[in-house]
Amino acid sequence: MTEDAFQGQTIAIVGIGLMGGSLALALKERGVFQNVLAIDRNAETCADARARGIEATSDLNAVARADVIVLATPVRTILELLPRVGALARADAIVMDVGSTKRDIVQAMSQLPAHLQVIGGHPLCGKETAGFLSADANLFANTVFVLTPLARTSPQTLAYAQSLVQRIGARPLIVDAERHDWILATTSHLPYLLAATLMMIADERARDDDLLFALAASGFRDTSRLAASNPTMMLDILMTNRANVTEALRASARKLKVLASRIEKGEELELRECLQSAANQRQRISRPVGQVTQRTPEPKSHY
Amino acid sequence: MTEDAFQGQTIAIVGIGLMGGSLALALKERGVFQNVLAIDRNAETCADARARGIEATSDLNAVARADVIVLATPVRTILELLPRVGALARADAIVMDVGSTKRDIVQAMSQLPAHLQVIGGHPLCGKETAGFLSADANLFANTVFVLTPLARTSPQTLAYAQSLVQRIGARPLIVDAERHDWILATTSHLPYLLAATLMMIADERARDDDLLFALAASGFRDTSRLAASNPTMMLDILMTNRANVTEALRASARKLKVLASRIEKGEELELRECLQSAANQRQRISRPVGQVTQRTPEPKSHY
Repeated sequence: MTEDAFQGQTIAIVGIGLMGGSLALALKERGVFQNVLAIDRNAETCADARARGIEATSDLNAVARADVIVLATPVRTILELLPRVGALARADAIVMDVGSTKRDIVQAMSQLPAHLQVIGGHPLCGKETAGFLSADANLFANTVFVLTPLARTSPQTLAYAQSLVQRIGARPLIVDAERHDWILATTSHLPYLLAATLMMIADERARDDDLLFALAASGFRDTSRLAASNPTMMLDILMTNRANVTEALRASARKLKVLASRIEKGEELELRECLQSAANQRQRISRPVGQVTQRTPEPKSHY
Repeated sequence: MTEDAFQGQTIAIVGIGLMGGSLALALKERGVFQNVLAIDRNAETCADARARGIEATSDLNAVARADVIVLATPVRTILELLPRVGALARADAIVMDVGSTKRDIVQAMSQLPAHLQVIGGHPLCGKETAGFLSADANLFANTVFVLTPLARTSPQTLAYAQSLVQRIGARPLIVDAERHDWILATTSHLPYLLAATLMMIADERARDDDLLFALAASGFRDTSRLAASNPTMMLDILMTNRANVTEALRASARKLKVLASRIEKGEELELRECLQSAANQRQRISRPVGQVTQRTPEPKSHY
């Protein structure tokens, strides 16, 4: 499709926190659309957006003006908004989202009026800091942006979404929604819960020893970093991916108990084998894409 | 103590991997000692050190020339070396180490001849990349360097060690060896094992879905980063801190199972409470030392 597909068009972005705000800024800065319209129920956030040159309103009815509507709130708010937006959107509008789980959203999209085009999306990027004031026009640069088309999604809509993703510097990757949620349970939701667990345990133990956090260096900080994520956003993610997340947590608990038993018994051969394998795998994924033969050490410190 | 304490003296560093090599480079660059002598059983490593202007030998007997000897090998090699070094060192020499667990090392130090001064140490810094070629004269800058004095450690030796630590840019912190090991089980050994567990689970699941690592972004990479640590070094750490590490692992496994159960049952109030508490704690420790009122967001991305 030509890049002119967006010329003269209006995009409405509902929810301009970190993700929606970054999308609005990225599109505005690159001049992709004729109009970028931010819709956020928070009047202060709308004022912040206007201060950055983005047209903003708290009136959801404004989605009726848009050729493409992107829902960028926490996942369960997207689920609530979809029927309302579906009723307001004009015929042939495209309804997208950037929610972090996809199965329930794609299911809700399938219920929208047939005159709308729908496609799910999930950009694999973010920050711990939430809100429009953390938004960044370059947030999506060089990141993977998953697209989850439905059976009813037209080839034209898919191409349109791919083109939109590319215009903000991201790489589109088409993945089935169920498959997305199964994978993300391991690559995103589990890491978050491991980080939160580490933080909870450290916090409990810090009550017994006030020196504990003084002896926490960069290794602790990196492993616990995701624990700072917004709990409302994360709770929506966990509640819409329960079976996959629960399974990943239980697999981790079993693995930790096996490790504990092996360490207790001094089963060094078995320990060395699994720790070496984990180290090899981790070094493999630290290579930038396209470099497969030369090891690329990461310069960051740990202890 | 005056900084002149090191003038005219010789320091011998046994094992010049990342830690020992960085110490040698830091001391050489700052001109703290008259002589910096590296001792490493690997002839190639000695050649690498000489190429950086460090006198190097594979002969352990050379410790007899030193006023202060720092053991910088993996922990269990330190335990093997201590009696040998104790027999070779000259009277009144100071024997230190930079091993990552301290109880067993301090115990072994207590067995050395009475004419030697002994003190344990652990700089809370590092990299995933091991070896002298990764060594960095600034590795210790602004990091905490734990010192674990023994009952027999003289005030002069403690002051000498504190001064040495300060000369390489680190902050000395005196901690009892048992207490050090208990804390580090939570702040270092557990994060490593959580990272390794995440990597093992992801690796297993990647065999069922070859797209898995394509959907692993910076959140996964940060949480799994420590898994790339050297398994030999880590195995020595785990084997010399078994009870503390085992306890921390089992506490984590229990916590993960509780989380799984709460997610499965949709116990949102309880989940929100513990995830919010973890987020608050994590944000608290991300503040630089001395900034306690103003939140300092971390700029790194995640998803």
